[in-house]
Amino acid sequence: MQREPQNFGRVLSSMCTVPHPDAREAARRFLADNPGDPTTYPAVAELEREAVELLGEITGLDDPHGYVASGGTEANLQAVRAARNLADGDDPNVVAPESAHFSFQKAADVLGVELRLAPVDDDRRVDLDAVRRLADDETALIAGVAGTTEYGRVDPIPDLGEVAREVGALLHVDAAWGGFVLPFTDWAWNFADAPVDTMAIDPHKMGRAPVPAGGFLARDEATLDALAVDTPYLESTSQATLTGTRSGAGVAGAKAAMDALWREGYRENYERGQANAEWVADALESRGYGVVDPVLPLVAADIPREEISALQSAGWRVSPTATGELRIVCMPHVTREMLEEFLADLDSV
Amino acid sequence: MQREPQNFGRVLSSMCTVPHPDAREAARRFLADNPGDPTTYPAVAELEREAVELLGEITGLDDPHGYVASGGTEANLQAVRAARNLADGDDPNVVAPESAHFSFQKAADVLGVELRLAPVDDDRRVDLDAVRRLADDETALIAGVAGTTEYGRVDPIPDLGEVAREVGALLHVDAAWGGFVLPFTDWAWNFADAPVDTMAIDPHKMGRAPVPAGGFLARDEATLDALAVDTPYLESTSQATLTGTRSGAGVAGAKAAMDALWREGYRENYERGQANAEWVADALESRGYGVVDPVLPLVAADIPREEISALQSAGWRVSPTATGELRIVCMPHVTREMLEEFLADLDSV
Repeated sequence: MQREPQNFGRVLSSMCTVPHPDAREAARRFLADNPGDPTTYPAVAELEREAVELLGEITGLDDPHGYVASGGTEANLQAVRAARNLADGDDPNVVAPESAHFSFQKAADVLGVELRLAPVDDDRRVDLDAVRRLADDETALIAGVAGTTEYGRVDPIPDLGEVAREVGALLHVDAAWGGFVLPFTDWAWNFADAPVDTMAIDPHKMGRAPVPAGGFLARDEATLDALAVDTPYLESTSQATLTGTRSGAGVAGAKAAMDALWREGYRENYERGQANAEWVADALESRGYGVVDPVLPLVAADIPREEISALQSAGWRVSPTATGELRIVCMPHVTREMLEEFLADLDSV
Repeated sequence: MQREPQNFGRVLSSMCTVPHPDAREAARRFLADNPGDPTTYPAVAELEREAVELLGEITGLDDPHGYVASGGTEANLQAVRAARNLADGDDPNVVAPESAHFSFQKAADVLGVELRLAPVDDDRRVDLDAVRRLADDETALIAGVAGTTEYGRVDPIPDLGEVAREVGALLHVDAAWGGFVLPFTDWAWNFADAPVDTMAIDPHKMGRAPVPAGGFLARDEATLDALAVDTPYLESTSQATLTGTRSGAGVAGAKAAMDALWREGYRENYERGQANAEWVADALESRGYGVVDPVLPLVAADIPREEISALQSAGWRVSPTATGELRIVCMPHVTREMLEEFLADLDSV
């Protein structure tokens, strides 16, 4: 039986989207190249260096160190791993907001570090006092999120940087989803705004690259060195990535998408997505639903579970938050027409 | 500047190859689908279930548990992680041959387990007595390789299974490269041949799928459960994969390649590759080079470092083993004509 790829016409809760046409074409061309073996595949390795340079430009970092990762989970895990490997103590811990992506739970299990979760405040940003209480001499990493998965919130990154410096920890920012919209806002989130050591920023989310194209960035080369293992049979002598063989499609696709869209294309994506988010938030509020104000292009609304189920049965790809709210992520493929159709279906269920 | 993907006409040492045309087409169609979110992308999730069934068929496992991983590194790491998580003791160790892929070093660093490397015998297969000496009550996993990266050797898997049972460890087989050629040989290597608990088998190597398409297989569901973390905002309630967002291109490409090639196409690949390996081994031996007998389609030959450098300058993508031998991996794209051209260049350097 021939299966069909997902039609994005009713996908509202995903952080993936339709890749840019240039990114699709680059992915097709570089499908068989392996950036994990840069001596055998030098062209795609060069594309990766250029992609990392562009990611540095987007995140306010001159001379960036890093690579195109499999996604935000790998980038978050590698940040924790580097901090753990560089830590002095025997029992390193990580302090992150409870709103952090579940990949931090995965990283804690994989890496055997203690994860201390700080509660969030009324606006769903991390509570700084709680972070101060949780952080201690054994804290290897403090993580903040710039664009949370569930509510699109931006933690107070410069303040987290102060706490990190006080306890001698590294500061990681998870901008996996937010990194390609935040440059067009007033939020302080990047390497230029705060003493950020590492960052996750995924071209395959708001960057319109094909999967797998995450980004792991580090301010210092030593951070990347803390991840390196020897590679006996490859010409390059060490490898800092989590995976071995990697996707040339992801690397070339990320470079092509950023070439096409940075910077004005991404600004348009942001402005359209933000306007759609505010529009649908108002429309839901006017219908009497409780709505979490969209500070970035992501709306969460209190819609009863049975109405969500009815929408799912009607083909809408919507999934709830941990506390049951429906999430609408205004990705580039989400149009005003889709949202109008969604509201019409909501009104009829 | 427009960069060109690698031409495979002179690639001899890579374990990647040109994907099957059906796999390319499937990858193109499913580029934007995320099998990491099966409720939003049900079609690619179904393709993944079918791909895992096929991998079970290839590896002698009814009712297989597993998924399409980013590659062999992830599959090896996940095997170590599952064994560590299931172990009783506080200080679990892993026993593997010194010929094991460097991803076991990476897994040991990431997971914080002790890696004990057993020497190999004169035929470069793991020394069983050494494995017995290294294994103890704290051994969580014994790993064997079915098709080593450097020499294509197959460890004595059933014997390793006996040692594993004696010390209460799990048995993992790394067939990342060998898994698509071993079904056509007499080697005992798979789930039906021995008490294998987990396996790495990569469609994106000899299976002619596009990257990223590794395979992680487990005999028991409990092994996969030992890897699961909660996924609060996804409809599926837990996730056992190492990465989060995953490549639909890899999953759909793997399924398409296996549909096209299992079983007779892979047999032809194997027979042609093995014949080419034996032919080039004879040709090198007759020129006076020391050659490691190719038991699988992989030849290592003692070629002086300066001759390897000259060949690299002539555009040949060849890389040496840890001990300096040149490796020729007879992947599906490696033709007799390429090898003849290679020998002509070798004769002239």
